[in-house]
Amino acid sequence: MHAVTTEHGLGRVEGDQIALLDSPYADLGAVVEATGSLACLDDCAVTRRVPADDVRLLAPLGRPRAIWGVGLNYRSKAAKAGRDLPTEPILYLAASSALLSPDEEVAVPGDATEQLDYEGEIAVVIGRRLHRAAPEDVWPAVAGITAANDMTARDVMKRTATPTLAKSFPGCNPLGPSVCTVDELADADAIRVRTWVNDELRQDDTSAGMIFAIPDLVSRISWYAALEPGDVVLTGTPAGTGQDLDRFLAPGDRIRIEVGPVLPLVTTVGAASG
Amino acid sequence: MHAVTTEHGLGRVEGDQIALLDSPYADLGAVVEATGSLACLDDCAVTRRVPADDVRLLAPLGRPRAIWGVGLNYRSKAAKAGRDLPTEPILYLAASSALLSPDEEVAVPGDATEQLDYEGEIAVVIGRRLHRAAPEDVWPAVAGITAANDMTARDVMKRTATPTLAKSFPGCNPLGPSVCTVDELADADAIRVRTWVNDELRQDDTSAGMIFAIPDLVSRISWYAALEPGDVVLTGTPAGTGQDLDRFLAPGDRIRIEVGPVLPLVTTVGAASG
Repeated sequence: MHAVTTEHGLGRVEGDQIALLDSPYADLGAVVEATGSLACLDDCAVTRRVPADDVRLLAPLGRPRAIWGVGLNYRSKAAKAGRDLPTEPILYLAASSALLSPDEEVAVPGDATEQLDYEGEIAVVIGRRLHRAAPEDVWPAVAGITAANDMTARDVMKRTATPTLAKSFPGCNPLGPSVCTVDELADADAIRVRTWVNDELRQDDTSAGMIFAIPDLVSRISWYAALEPGDVVLTGTPAGTGQDLDRFLAPGDRIRIEVGPVLPLVTTVGAASG
Repeated sequence: MHAVTTEHGLGRVEGDQIALLDSPYADLGAVVEATGSLACLDDCAVTRRVPADDVRLLAPLGRPRAIWGVGLNYRSKAAKAGRDLPTEPILYLAASSALLSPDEEVAVPGDATEQLDYEGEIAVVIGRRLHRAAPEDVWPAVAGITAANDMTARDVMKRTATPTLAKSFPGCNPLGPSVCTVDELADADAIRVRTWVNDELRQDDTSAGMIFAIPDLVSRISWYAALEPGDVVLTGTPAGTGQDLDRFLAPGDRIRIEVGPVLPLVTTVGAASG
């Protein structure tokens, strides 16, 4: 299943087309919260098919009730930063009010940050509740994966040492646009993640390069907090962020993130409004 | 307006009685998300009145999409801990999957923590979106206040230095049971908060003792993240926690928190299950 939330309701991605579905749910998050997976979309009648380019895609999950994130989770990033590998994941929650719909502009006022940065990431959508879960129980409970741009105000991070504050400005969390179930992945242990800024490839790695692999990472979170259907886990970013290059985002920049078979997540930086 | 979510739907608190309401909403959180306040409950027809003791109260807000908290926000607590007053609030998000319904048991396994502690707090329920709000814009946008027990695993806090992890175990966030609108408060600048453990008064202070008063605290959060309708802000705890007394919670302990005119929030500590 490869699904989207569109201006016309839910849809299945079928090559270059979107099959619009006869479904009572407002978004894919509501499907997952109600049913624990996206499987029920297989049975929905198709109302019509439209070219993918002709339909506006919305935030696939609505507004999640938890967006977990992890600092420094790729060996490439640790090597670039010259940092030791962490022995426990550095976990945080980002405010889900920071969510940005696909293809929208992010505009963080200049008096809030002068160092806005992108982070291309694999986002995991929890399907069934996980509490004190073993790593082998994680993938069967995952509803799907999507792409995230876990944008970070580096100067705010330096000043506050609080990822929640550096990553929660409105618009700093582009997520989507499509959600792929795990069976759609060629290799769930090596999901590719790439980030382009203005057509220049900046990040290119796979989840095989993670310090805490997805099943291990999600399991570890679940020993602290229960993960509920529709909750999201951002799984860290590889080397190649603006921080690594000392080049931060500026108005007009266009970021494109590709995660496995997920449709590209494109975000444009708008004029700073402050 | 002084409102509750009950097993029979929404209700208004009227002295010792609950007036059950003819309302389409599942909980008070849904009312606030849809309408920005609790005012519409004034117009609901009363289906019947029942003694308050005869009706089970549920989590008033359902599962919020953000629960913000703040470390060290009472002068009494800073004095007790011998710490300097912070110049900026120490902010975090707790996982809303930690929410506990009123009168339920909390049971955190012994292999997760040996130092479970209570924190009596005033919880603010956001009614209208706040982003870059001035302090004077905060109270008019608040839907109401309720009581919270922002329970903390002190040993996890010491080990991880991460409030989000120390406060997000399932059941560690009792919240409720009623929500009072601001006009019900005798003095919104001096809301009393008291905590008893097994009928021994442990905490007794008012919001006049806060380091960052509620309008200032909420305003400061809103300069980082937008606060949306139904989001909750826990506003810190005064002196008298178990940490201050070196006495942590044990199975069978009963914690009662009273915040202004909010109905008492009672939580019992269950047998550790790990």
